[in-house]
Order: sequence, then C-alpha cells, then structure tokens
Amino acid sequence: MTKDTSNQMWGGRFADGPDAIMEAINASIGFDQRLAAQDIRGSSAHAAMLAATGILRDNDAEAIREGLLTVLSEIEGGNFTFSAALEDIHMNVEARLKEIVGEPAGRLHTARSRNDQVATDFRLWVRDQMDAIDGALVTLLQACLAQASAGADWVMPGFTHLQVAQPVTWGHHMMAYVEMFARDRSRFADARARMNESPLGAAALAGTSFPIDRHMTAEALGFDRPCANSLDAVSDRDFALEFLSSASICAMHLSRLAEELVIWSSAQFRFVTLSDRFSTGSSIMPQKKNPDAAELIRAKIGRILGSTITLFTVMKGLPLTYSKDMQEDKEPVFDAADNLMLALAAMEGMLRDLTANRDVLERAAATGFSTATDLADWLVRELDLPFREAHHVTGTLVARAEAGGKDLPDLTLDEMTAVHSGIHQGVFDVLGVHNSVASRTSYGGTAPARVREQIARWEAALK
Amino acid sequence: MTKDTSNQMWGGRFADGPDAIMEAINASIGFDQRLAAQDIRGSSAHAAMLAATGILRDNDAEAIREGLLTVLSEIEGGNFTFSAALEDIHMNVEARLKEIVGEPAGRLHTARSRNDQVATDFRLWVRDQMDAIDGALVTLLQACLAQASAGADWVMPGFTHLQVAQPVTWGHHMMAYVEMFARDRSRFADARARMNESPLGAAALAGTSFPIDRHMTAEALGFDRPCANSLDAVSDRDFALEFLSSASICAMHLSRLAEELVIWSSAQFRFVTLSDRFSTGSSIMPQKKNPDAAELIRAKIGRILGSTITLFTVMKGLPLTYSKDMQEDKEPVFDAADNLMLALAAMEGMLRDLTANRDVLERAAATGFSTATDLADWLVRELDLPFREAHHVTGTLVARAEAGGKDLPDLTLDEMTAVHSGIHQGVFDVLGVHNSVASRTSYGGTAPARVREQIARWEAALK
Amino acid sequence: MTKDTSNQMWGGRFADGPDAIMEAINASIGFDQRLAAQDIRGSSAHAAMLAATGILRDNDAEAIREGLLTVLSEIEGGNFTFSAALEDIHMNVEARLKEIVGEPAGRLHTARSRNDQVATDFRLWVRDQMDAIDGALVTLLQACLAQASAGADWVMPGFTHLQVAQPVTWGHHMMAYVEMFARDRSRFADARARMNESPLGAAALAGTSFPIDRHMTAEALGFDRPCANSLDAVSDRDFALEFLSSASICAMHLSRLAEELVIWSSAQFRFVTLSDRFSTGSSIMPQKKNPDAAELIRAKIGRILGSTITLFTVMKGLPLTYSKDMQEDKEPVFDAADNLMLALAAMEGMLRDLTANRDVLERAAATGFSTATDLADWLVRELDLPFREAHHVTGTLVARAEAGGKDLPDLTLDEMTAVHSGIHQGVFDVLGVHNSVASRTSYGGTAPARVREQIARWEAALK
Amino acid sequence: MTKDTSNQMWGGRFADGPDAIMEAINASIGFDQRLAAQDIRGSSAHAAMLAATGILRDNDAEAIREGLLTVLSEIEGGNFTFSAALEDIHMNVEARLKEIVGEPAGRLHTARSRNDQVATDFRLWVRDQMDAIDGALVTLLQACLAQASAGADWVMPGFTHLQVAQPVTWGHHMMAYVEMFARDRSRFADARARMNESPLGAAALAGTSFPIDRHMTAEALGFDRPCANSLDAVSDRDFALEFLSSASICAMHLSRLAEELVIWSSAQFRFVTLSDRFSTGSSIMPQKKNPDAAELIRAKIGRILGSTITLFTVMKGLPLTYSKDMQEDKEPVFDAADNLMLALAAMEGMLRDLTANRDVLERAAATGFSTATDLADWLVRELDLPFREAHHVTGTLVARAEAGGKDLPDLTLDEMTAVHSGIHQGVFDVLGVHNSVASRTSYGGTAPARVREQIARWEAALK
Repeated sequence: MTKDTSNQMWGGRFADGPDAIMEAINASIGFDQRLAAQDIRGSSAHAAMLAATGILRDNDAEAIREGLLTVLSEIEGGNFTFSAALEDIHMNVEARLKEIVGEPAGRLHTARSRNDQVATDFRLWVRDQMDAIDGALVTLLQACLAQASAGADWVMPGFTHLQVAQPVTWGHHMMAYVEMFARDRSRFADARARMNESPLGAAALAGTSFPIDRHMTAEALGFDRPCANSLDAVSDRDFALEFLSSASICAMHLSRLAEELVIWSSAQFRFVTLSDRFSTGSSIMPQKKNPDAAELIRAKIGRILGSTITLFTVMKGLPLTYSKDMQEDKEPVFDAADNLMLALAAMEGMLRDLTANRDVLERAAATGFSTATDLADWLVRELDLPFREAHHVTGTLVARAEAGGKDLPDLTLDEMTAVHSGIHQGVFDVLGVHNSVASRTSYGGTAPARVREQIARWEAALK
Repeated sequence: MTKDTSNQMWGGRFADGPDAIMEAINASIGFDQRLAAQDIRGSSAHAAMLAATGILRDNDAEAIREGLLTVLSEIEGGNFTFSAALEDIHMNVEARLKEIVGEPAGRLHTARSRNDQVATDFRLWVRDQMDAIDGALVTLLQACLAQASAGADWVMPGFTHLQVAQPVTWGHHMMAYVEMFARDRSRFADARARMNESPLGAAALAGTSFPIDRHMTAEALGFDRPCANSLDAVSDRDFALEFLSSASICAMHLSRLAEELVIWSSAQFRFVTLSDRFSTGSSIMPQKKNPDAAELIRAKIGRILGSTITLFTVMKGLPLTYSKDMQEDKEPVFDAADNLMLALAAMEGMLRDLTANRDVLERAAATGFSTATDLADWLVRELDLPFREAHHVTGTLVARAEAGGKDLPDLTLDEMTAVHSGIHQGVFDVLGVHNSVASRTSYGGTAPARVREQIARWEAALK
Repeated sequence: MTKDTSNQMWGGRFADGPDAIMEAINASIGFDQRLAAQDIRGSSAHAAMLAATGILRDNDAEAIREGLLTVLSEIEGGNFTFSAALEDIHMNVEARLKEIVGEPAGRLHTARSRNDQVATDFRLWVRDQMDAIDGALVTLLQACLAQASAGADWVMPGFTHLQVAQPVTWGHHMMAYVEMFARDRSRFADARARMNESPLGAAALAGTSFPIDRHMTAEALGFDRPCANSLDAVSDRDFALEFLSSASICAMHLSRLAEELVIWSSAQFRFVTLSDRFSTGSSIMPQKKNPDAAELIRAKIGRILGSTITLFTVMKGLPLTYSKDMQEDKEPVFDAADNLMLALAAMEGMLRDLTANRDVLERAAATGFSTATDLADWLVRELDLPFREAHHVTGTLVARAEAGGKDLPDLTLDEMTAVHSGIHQGVFDVLGVHNSVASRTSYGGTAPARVREQIARWEAALK
Repeated sequence: MTKDTSNQMWGGRFADGPDAIMEAINASIGFDQRLAAQDIRGSSAHAAMLAATGILRDNDAEAIREGLLTVLSEIEGGNFTFSAALEDIHMNVEARLKEIVGEPAGRLHTARSRNDQVATDFRLWVRDQMDAIDGALVTLLQACLAQASAGADWVMPGFTHLQVAQPVTWGHHMMAYVEMFARDRSRFADARARMNESPLGAAALAGTSFPIDRHMTAEALGFDRPCANSLDAVSDRDFALEFLSSASICAMHLSRLAEELVIWSSAQFRFVTLSDRFSTGSSIMPQKKNPDAAELIRAKIGRILGSTITLFTVMKGLPLTYSKDMQEDKEPVFDAADNLMLALAAMEGMLRDLTANRDVLERAAATGFSTATDLADWLVRELDLPFREAHHVTGTLVARAEAGGKDLPDLTLDEMTAVHSGIHQGVFDVLGVHNSVASRTSYGGTAPARVREQIARWEAALK
C-alpha cells in the first residue's frame, strides 16, 4: 500500500515507502477531512477558471466539477472512506475523483499546488467559522439585552475587589457585557476583512507560468482579491493567529461572566437561580445544583488560549515558505472554534433561562455602606468641601456607623453634625440605593434612564 | 510615614498602616510612573471640563492646570521624587500638585476615581505606542522595499522545508515581508480604532451625579467618543490584550525573517553579509561575526508572547468591575511595547545595512533540480500530459540526472526521450533559472515584472 | 567609546563599532548585574583552580582573588558604575579588576569563556533562589499549620462547584494547602538536585586543552559534579525551565488560596476577616476594605506563567550550542523569582493575620442539605440499601425538605418513612454537622482526630 | 432519554432534563473513555477492599469483579457502546456492570465518589504514560549512543550563533543530547514518585464514615501510599501540570535536534542524509526530499506547550474542591502524551536511519578559522601572553588571513611573526582540526578519548 501511495503522489523518486511511525506522524487526513467542503469549493472554482482561460478543455472541466459534487455528496452522506495512505484531504478527494471521472482528474492539479490549495481551504474554513461565531455572538447579545431590558432598574451591588462598592442596576451590569461582546464581533469582523484574500494560484510558492486568472477564482470564492505575493500567500498563518487571539479575548469575556454566575449562584450570594436545564447534580450529594455550564465556559479560555500558544510556538522562527510544521496549524484552530461556539451557545442558553433574584440583589446593594460615595459627593456639591476632605468626613461617618452596627442612613443628624457641622437634613435624600442609582446620570452611568437609552441603541443596532 | 500615607488617601478608617510586604506588593509607582504624561493630560482635560460645566471655579481650574504643567516639567526634567508610600502615579502627581497649588488640588478628583483615571491613562499610553509602532513599521517597510527594489530580478532559491524548491527573486522574497508587515500595521490600526473611547467620567464604576460632560473630555484627549457603559469602561482590558496579540503576531513575522538572516549568514549559506554594525564577535573565538541582532529579534517573540499570556491569565475569570489583579496589566504591556520597538528598529537597521550576495544566491538557485516544476509544467502545456503523469515523468528524469551527477539542463535530449518520446528541443528553454522566474507571470508571481509592479504599488502607498 | 569597547573585547577584527540600536538590543548589563555575586564567586573558584593546576602563578591568582573581593564590595556598597559599553556583568567585573590589579586580570579568562561563565553564574543564581523559596515555603507552611491547629475542629462548608457539599473542618481545609505547598517544596528540591552540576570548564563549547580540574571548581562552588558534556553545559537551559515550571505550579496553588480569601472576605460570605495591614481602602469609597494582597497574589500566576512561556518560546528550535537568543533567559527568571517570593511572603503575612469567623463558618456548614451524603451513607450502612437506591431516597427527602422550606434534620420521622419505610429514629444521629465531620474517620478524612494527626506529622517534619 | 439519564445518576431532584447544548458541553465520554482500563482497575481494587473490610458481601464483590472483567473485555474488543447520556466513563462502566451483574453493581459506589474515582483513574493513566515515555526515551538514548559510538572521532564544526566556532566530534554532539534526554527521564521519574499517592477513599471531598482501608487500595493499585488529605486528593491537578511541564521540556530538547536535522539536511549544509523512510516528496516538485518528520517533531513543542498553558489557565484561581472546570484536565494531557510519544518514536527512527556525511562534516569543520581559539590558547600557554592579549593577536592574524583569502594554517611564519615576534614553528601543530579536538581533554571535552568514556558510561547505565 505504501508503495502505491508513493507512486500516486510523490514517490517516483523514492526507493522505500514511509515507515509506519512516519505515516502516523505525517498523515493529516484524521483532522483535515473537516476541510472537505472547502477543498471541493476551491477545486470547483479552480476548474472553472482553468476552463475559462483555455488551460483545460470545457468537457474535462465539466466532468471534474460534476465529479467533485459526487465526492462532496459522498462525504456529506458519510459514504466516503478516508485513507491515511493518501495523507490528506486533497489527495483523498483527488484520488476518489479519479475513480469517478478518470483521466481528467489528473488535469485538475494544473497550475496549483497543495501549498496554495491548503492555504485556500483553511482560509475558507476560518472565514466560515467567523461567520458562525458572529451569528452566535448576535444571539448572545440579544440574550444579554433581554436580561438588561427586564431589569433596567433593578438595583444590585456594583463590586470592586468583590466588595460592595456602589449600587448599580442589573440592566447596567448586563449592558457591560453587551459592550464587550459587541467589541468581540467587531474584532472578528476586522480579522475577516484582513484575511479575505485568495492564495489560490500562488502554486507551490512562486506563482505559475500558466495563464491563470487569480481574480476570477478569488471572486468565485468570495474573496475580496487575490494575495499580492505568492510566497506570503503560502507561508503565513497570521490570519489563523488573529482568529485565535480574537477567540481568546472573547473567551476571556465569557470567563468573567461565567465566574460571576458561579459566585452569584452560591448559597451565600443567591443573586441568581440557574435553570435545571443548565445545572447538574452530584453522584453523592443529591442536594447539589451545580453551575456546571458556567464552570465549563469559564474553563474554555484555557483551551482556546492553549491553542493560540500552540500556533504561535509552531510559527516562531520558521523560514519561508511552507514548512511541514505548519500542518500543526489546523487542529488548534478547529478545537478553538468548536469550543468557542459551544461556550457561546451555552452562555446564551444559560442567560436566557436565568432568574435574577431581584429582592436579594436589592438587599445586597443596601449593605456595606454602598452609598458612601453619594455622601461624599453630596458634601462636595452641597457644602463645597474639597473632594479629599469630603472623603475624610465620609470615612469617619462610616467608621462611626460601623462601630454602632448601623448603616449610614441610620445615623442621626446629630451624629453627623458631630463630625461636620455643615451637614443638614438634605443629606438623607442621597443615602438610599434607589436615589443613588437614579442620580448617576452621566453618559454611560447606571441611572435607569441612561441604561434604557443604551438598550434602545443596541436593540436598534442588532435589528 | 505609613500613617501619613493612609491618612492622605484611604486611611481614615484603618487602624494600622500597611505592612512592609504589603507595601512592596501593592505599590505600582515603580512602573506606572511611565504614565505620568498621560495622567497629566487626562487631569488637565478633566479640570477644564469641570470648569466648563461649572463644577469647578475657573480660577481653581486655572491653578490646577498650571500646577499640572509644573509637575510635568519636573517629571520630564528628572526633578521629581516618586514616593512608594503614595502608591501610584495618580497620588504622586496629586500630592505634588497640592504642594504647588494648595487647596484647589483637592477639587481635581471631583467626579472621577482612580478606576476611570488609570483606564484613561493606560489607553492613552497604549494609543501612543500604537502610533510609534506604526511609524517604526513604515520605516521597516521602506527598508524592505529598498532591498526589493535593488534586487527585483536577482535570482535566489525559493525554499520549502528548507529545501530548494523553485527559483524566485530576492525582490519577491523581500516583498513577502512587505505584505506581512503591512498587515501588522492594519492590525494595529484596527485595534487603535476599536479602543479609542474615553473611560473618563465612568468614575469608580457607576458614573457620577455631577453634571459632567464626557464628550468634552473625550474630544480633548483625542478619543472618538466616551465609553458607553461605565462598568465596562473601568473593568475591561481587552484593548491591551488586542495590542499584545497584535504585537505577538508582528513579532512572529520578525522571528521568521530573523531566522532566515541567521541561516543565510552561516558559512554554509553565505546568502547575505551583515554589516559590522549589526554583528558582534566572541570573547574567545576572534574570527566569529555573529548575527546577534537577528538572534535577539528572533527571541523577542518569546518575551512578547509571554507578556500576552500574562495578561490573559490575569484577566481570566475576574468578576466585574475593578479588581486589584488588574494592576498587573501594565508591566507586560510596557515590556512588550519596548521590545517590539527595539526589534523593529534593529531589524530595519540590519536590513538597510545588509548585503545580499547576488552570485551566491544565483548559484544556489540553480542547484537541486529547482526547475523540475518548470519541466513538469512544460510537459503539461506542450505535450498535453495530465499533471500527475507529467509529474511522474519529471521525477524519473530527476532520478536519472541525480544518478549521473548532473542537473536537469545537462541531460541530453536522447536521455530525455528515453523517458518520454514526445520531449523535444524546446524543453531546454524552460530549464534555466532566469527563464523560470521570468515565466511565472501570474498575479503575485515571482516574474521580475510582477515584482516591480508590487514595489511600485507599495512605494506609492507609503508615500 | 564604541571603538574602545570593541578593542577591549572582540573588536580586533571589526571596522565599525556597533550601532546605537545594536548596543541597546545587545547589552545585558541592565539586568545581568544581578549576577554579580555569583560571577565573582565563580571567578574566584576558577582562579584558585588555575593556580592549583599550575596554569596561573600563585601571586597572580592571589591578586585576582583579592581584586575580586574589592569589586564585590564596591558593587555591594553601591560604589560601582556599570557600563553598557562593556555589555555584560562579566566584562564589567573584568574591566574593573584590570583597573585594580593590572595585567594578571587578563589571565583570569584562561581556559574559560563567557559561555561557560554565564551558564555557571546563572545556575548559581537559580540555586540561590531555590534555597530562598524553600525557606519562604517553610514559613508559609508554618502559617498554614498554625491556622489548622487553631481550628482543627471548627466546622465549615466543604464546597464543590462553590456549592456547599459536605461539612469539613477549617483545619482540614488549611491542611490541604499544607500538602500542596509541601509538594511544591519537593518539586524545587528535585529540580535543584538535577541542575546542581557545574558548567565551568566547558569553555566556549568544546572544553579546553589547558589541564584544568573541573571537579575542583565544581566542589568549590557547591556543585555535585561537573557537567559531563561541554556542548550540553553551555547550550541547555532546561534547569531554568524546570525552575519556572515549578514556580508556575506553586503560583497556581497560591492563586487558589487567594481566590478563596477574596470570596471568603466578601460581604456575602464573611468567612474570614483580613487584617488592616493586608487590606487597603479606596480613593472614592471610604467604606471599602479590599483584599488587595489576595488579588495581587492571585494575579502573580499570570506573570510567572508568562515568564515560563517566554523562555520556552525562546529555546524552541535553537540549534546547539550558544545562540544570542539565550540572553533572553535571565529576565523572565528574575521576574518570576522575585514575584514568587513576594507572593509567598504576602500570603504568609495574610494568613498569620487572618481571623476565621468561626460562627459564620459553622452556620454556613449547616445549610444547603450538607449532610445529605451522611443520610445516604446511613441508608446503605443501616438499611443495607444499594448505594444508588440510597442516593435516590436521599434526593427525594431533600426535595421534600426544600419544598417545605426546611433542612433535613427538620423533617419528621413520619415524613421520612413516607419515602422509605425502613428509616428509624437513629437517622437523626448523622444529620448534624458536628456528627458528620466526626464520623469521617477514614485516613485523610475530615474527622478532627484525623486532622490533628496530620498536623502533628507535619509539625514534626518541619522542625 | 434525558429523563432516564437524570434518573439514573443525579436527577431525582431535577424537574427538567439537560438541554442539548448542556449535554454537548457537559459530557466527557467522548474523551474520558480512554480511562476505561484504569477505571476498571480502580473499581476492582475498591470492590476487593470493600469485601475485605466487610462493607460488601464477598459474593457481591466477586460478581462485581467478574462483571468488570467482562466490561473490560467488551471495551478492549470494541464491543462496547459508549453513551453520551451517561456522561462519563464511570457511569458508562457502572451502567453496563448493572446490566451484567444486577443489583450488586449498585453497591460498588459505596464509600467513594466520582471525585476520588476520576482523580484515581487519571493518576493511573498519567503514571502509565510516564512509564511508556520512559521506555521511549531509553530507546531514543540508545539511538543517540549508536550514532555517537559510530562517530566518536568524526570531526564536525561546533557552532555558536550558527557560525562555525571550534571543531568538535560527531560523537560529542550526539552525547550532548544523551545528557538532555537523560535529564528528561529523571524529570519524569521524579514527577512519577511525587504523584504516586492514591486519592481513592477521599470520597466526594471529606473522606467517609465507612471503615475503609485506603492503604489496601493504594497498594493494590501500585501507589506508594494514600493521599493524606481528602480535600487535596480530589482538588489538585499539580501532577498533571508537572507531567505537562516535563513533556514540554522534553519537547524543547526534541525541537532543537529537529531544527539541526532540518538545517543539516539542506543542500547548503549536507551534513546528514535522511532515509527515504523518514522523508517525503512534494506534489509539484519531484526532486524534493523533505525532512517532514524533523519538521513535525520541531512543531510538537507548540502543541505540548499549548496543552500545558491550557491546564494552567484552567486551574488558575479555582476555589477548593472539585469544580467542573477540572473536566478540562484530560484532553490536553491526552494530546500531549500522544504527541510526545509520537515525536520520540519518530526521532528515534530518524536517528537510527540517519547517515552523517563524514567528509562534508570534516571539511566544514576546517573552515571559518575554527582553530583560532587553539591559536590563542597556544599563545597563552607557550608565550605566556595574558589571555586578552593572545586574543587580540589572534584577531589580527585572522584578519590578515581573511584579507589574503587563506585559512590560518596557510599563513607563513613570517606573516605570523610580523604580528607577534615570539611565534615559532610549533604553532602549526595546533591549527589542524584533528589536533584541535584531540587536545580538548578536559572532563566533558570533545577529545575522542573523553567522548568514548562518556559513551561507555552511558551504555553501562542503560543496560
């Protein structure tokens, strides 16, 4: 079999066939079969162009294109036997094509090489993933918006250092993630535009002497233009690294929301209740309702970041043009794309099903002297204290309240004027959490009115 | 001293000052003093806005702005003593401002917090770096173009797997890097546009009840708009991660060119000669002329990728909003920016000084049966063989030439027709390296005419 | 100046001095001055050996050794001016030595090279750090033991998925970290033993023709033996990678404990109270008491892991022997060592000062049906139910209790027998949290008696 | 189906079955089926212990053990249908066991949990891999030794900066890798010893109230002892991180040798010839003989390092004890182990088949003034010049030789004495490459006698 293999592809010169271990390390068909649809798309476009430019006879091109459709339907129908001896998806498709259409199959590879072919397939695949991820991000954004819309004015604690800092609204918190995931979309969009150039026709590395039309194949495959340098076209994988980096950033955002959901669904916080559909139990502790989905989403950044490192390390210090090291480009990208899609879908489902416990959130917002800043700002505004002095006065009042086991609104006016004589009754207007959030009307602030403006803006944008 | 410190900033409530080890792990002034200019820019814009909106008296604002200029000139002149007890650049500047202008200094911090302040400073710093890197990339592109222009038709081997594959031109090879570094520019440009929003006015996290004008400060600082969600504004560092990822991709490109320069300057390759200015000797081997700069550039991806991992790991799973973990965002970004700038400058210098050894390159291009593909393509074109059969015939001819210790052009016509009877005298036209490169006229191909078109396109673009 | 420089070291052959950018990227003295003490230790041992083997005259050796001591005291006293033109610590020391002792200084470099010299210095430095880290880990272990000892029988919730699972004791939880940090010690100890071989005498790469005694210098420097292959001695940095990997694992452990402290000190958990010394306030929220130290420790894994990636990436694919890329080995190791020491010290201080809120812990342990497993186990033991059936019965009882707003011990016997008729009064013995922890007497279990055995074992081991 | 699933395992309490997306993200059976053998080993030991301690009836234990053997043979024979609804390997095995043996299967899970079960399985798996890797490393060491033994005195260039530095021998170079791979073995051995503790019996996290004997199961499974803290036993994955780190270091060593093989097999170097079995051709360039195996091995560090980062990132900041994030521990470890084994085997095969081109190596060694150091050392030894002066004289002589287009031995004595009057005829004895290598007799040096001593030492050690 190895004999046949070598004959079929590159073996004319080789005395021995490859070793078993060599075949094991060398064959990529185990994973690059995922490029089948893209490979066939690329070959069809190539054949059409070869015919249009007179390099291939029309009937040969026609036979090839029909044969490719047959191969595709065999693969999609699960009726295709992939062969490791044929190494990769390109040779598997071509070998089957030859069985179907005979001699013309041998003409398909005119004016191209596996180097530009795999670069084309891989770009098409990554582009398809970007489109799928964009769709998933839109759905996730809508889930965030739905939560935000429901609770635009529900008060909850805003945290820094996981300490209650200032009251905010549930809607405001959800909208923070809308901003993040929207930037993720735009990052993928920029990456997509940058990588949308066709390597096809770069051939092995130097271009070709056949009178091909690279603009025609580029257009047929939805690329904006052909790559302008054939060496670069077959050598670089920066587009895959940019995809992975963008995916890692998106996974970072997901990991933060996931961490919040884990903490919020603890017995101590009880800020949210996850649906049964997105929880699991335990084999020995029947009472547990575990936020498994949130934890798995939190973990996915590890996997996606690991894939990113993999490809960076592989590409480091490779001389031009194609080196076999670059065969290691696909699996990390496949794995990252799969896991990001999974994490996005799980997060969207979890969010849609999620119940925010409004009462618990509001009670939590009112603890921990969360309106101390409001007090300090009041001292500045009303009494014209310099900020640092207002800060000091507030600190002292907080210390007294804490010593007395009270919250700030529970201090008497006498207790307050003992600290600063200028304080008057008006101070009590700013110490409640609803007053607090309503007052923060600066652009981007947590005032429900402001939050609703942002919700409206994003709902319009996502229509 | 710690007593004073705590009083100044947040200590009203605290019984003990911080421990020495706490101060060591907590203070950021050792590194964030690099944000001094950005911090003062931000404070000036904030003061002007506070005055314009009537929150601050005009004369106070004026005193503050003049005081800030004094502080800036002290820092730039090296006449400023940074204090670890004052923790960070913000407090160092404000404390000095208070010494200079007295009471009004205490009003500067109205309607802002260190959370939005540091986010603003850091964005301004990263944006400045992006602009500097863009300039360095332009200079490097010009160095590549100069080399390409000089040797647009010098023949050299095109490699795959570090094996001679097909002849290409020196200019074509240099232009491959023009494409890569140009994409690096565009990647930074996209990142810059995405992050160019102002966090200022997000305050601690929730916005503020003061009637501030965030659009005014945004415009004054060159931002396109204010961040639309205050929680997001103080919590996210995706802009820094995108900067680091883009820097890592650029460093990957540099590492590949650096590897080529190291290999090419070996005694075995001798493709290039580095200038003395960009080489070093050895303490014990006086004859050595080491490509140290190339090696150091090759290594920089390690450092920049390490910084990228650092920040991803730090950000993983942090709940909103600000957590102290995020203080670890600056050093990796500083280090990556410094090292990328250094690597870009060193690469540009090395390239400008570099001598390509034209004769060595051409001789190397002519070895290793580098025109075998041309032969195969000729068989397809002239004899209408299917590609795979042409490939097989070529393989057999190569094996015969190798057995006879010759190159392909040295085979006689008889030796050739013995393998395939259709071969005729015309075949010798495609076997020389100059014929080969001249024939590859497909768009993006290595034909000197094509290479010169690309050079002209890029020279125009960079003007 | 560059002219002089080049003369001094390797410039005999070079027409031009190095470019400014070259000097900037090439000089290591900015960071490798931290190797000064190790460099001088190595040089002293080398000089003594050269004298003992007759390669150097005794009086020259004596002058060198005394001169080196002078240099060391100048450096330690801060009276040494490092010169970037002299590139690195080795040349800085040697140049100063020449000023002090004159001509004999030029004989010190006999039979060695900067390649074996820097490998020796760096190993000595890493070894010193491992010893320091070992000391810091011992101190941290003692802090954990002190906490464990104080609360060996304080009941708290054991969590899985941040959900209350089963009651455990505070001491048991603390002892889990004792196991982890003890493994970290053993990991560093193994790494130390493996790397404790002397590169000195490997010279540039091939060894030397001088009749040196490498065993003598190895012994003088505390190495177990000389490296057995000179190429390996100057080429490998696996010892630094092992140090970094071990540091990353230790930092991972620290990050977990740090995360717990952050969560536990939230207003919602209140499991622990941090001391003022290890907390900070906020510039705008006076009431905050932030767990900054815990957050910074949590973040340190990012930095240390980043350094690990840096060196792995640098070393990837470097041909033997020394390449300048390897100059990038030191800064990541310095940074990782510094930050690990800082994190260990801060964690130890935080733990020593920490107050566990015993009542809060116990109340939390009693919620969430945390003794459901005890019930299931009782059903197996007493009623001989198969485990899976016992599990199902327990789940049903939990659901009923939850529906009734009660905990398990609040169900009546009737309510229980309605689910499984065999349940009898004895069941109530296992449903309290104190009963639960006391019953888990398996080796390594949470029963206070077991925990105290482990504390005693470790206290003995650390004596 | 989801209904059944939930009933079977943990669903008593849950109203809804899991969502499809939840099942997709949650199920681990797709990968953890690789733990089948270890899972069954662990269960058998557990059942035997339960019987020995009287917790389980002997005939039930017997039925369970026989049933488990049946399950194992079904799995190994490929006659087992894994079910995603049953989530993981543990439940798949247990469910099948129940079909085979009925009710007693439900008693197997007494006094354990999936938490300690999976920790046990995973340790056993990692330990098995370490043993397999150790075997592969021994075989690779023998291949290195065979090469070293064949060419202990073949002269080749020793490189620094990929510049010819000093002559060494082929055997010496091969032995450098023997040292590296031997350290890799010792690193895995230390990791194995450290992790060889049994988690079984830690149960969910707190231990158990059943009178189990953890020492008995530990011994039965080849562990040195049980883990001493049940929380630690189910929570930590440092053993997997240490495995991954050690694998990354080993892959780093492999990447360096692979890079050398790629460079050495280039047309410009021609130092080695790879066998046809470990090379491949190209689809369009029939003359190519590509070092694919070497390139793929070089790339594997990317993948293994990526897996390392994955698990570090996953584990960062997880509170105790088990979190679902930790389900992401297996795939990176599986992938790293598989790829390391593949890389070791491919490297061993490539080395065994490799032909070193002795003449080319020797010619290369004699170029580039590679004996300049020998000249400098001679000046020190014979003329008593200080090293730095000898260095300068040598540099001047090299410059003159280079100017005259000669090598050092081609300079006349007159040309030499013109630079330093003391030079005499004896100098010519040290300028040949064979003289050079023979003279470097320091311990660990490249003198063939020294190299043969090391070969003998290692051959004895590996017997």
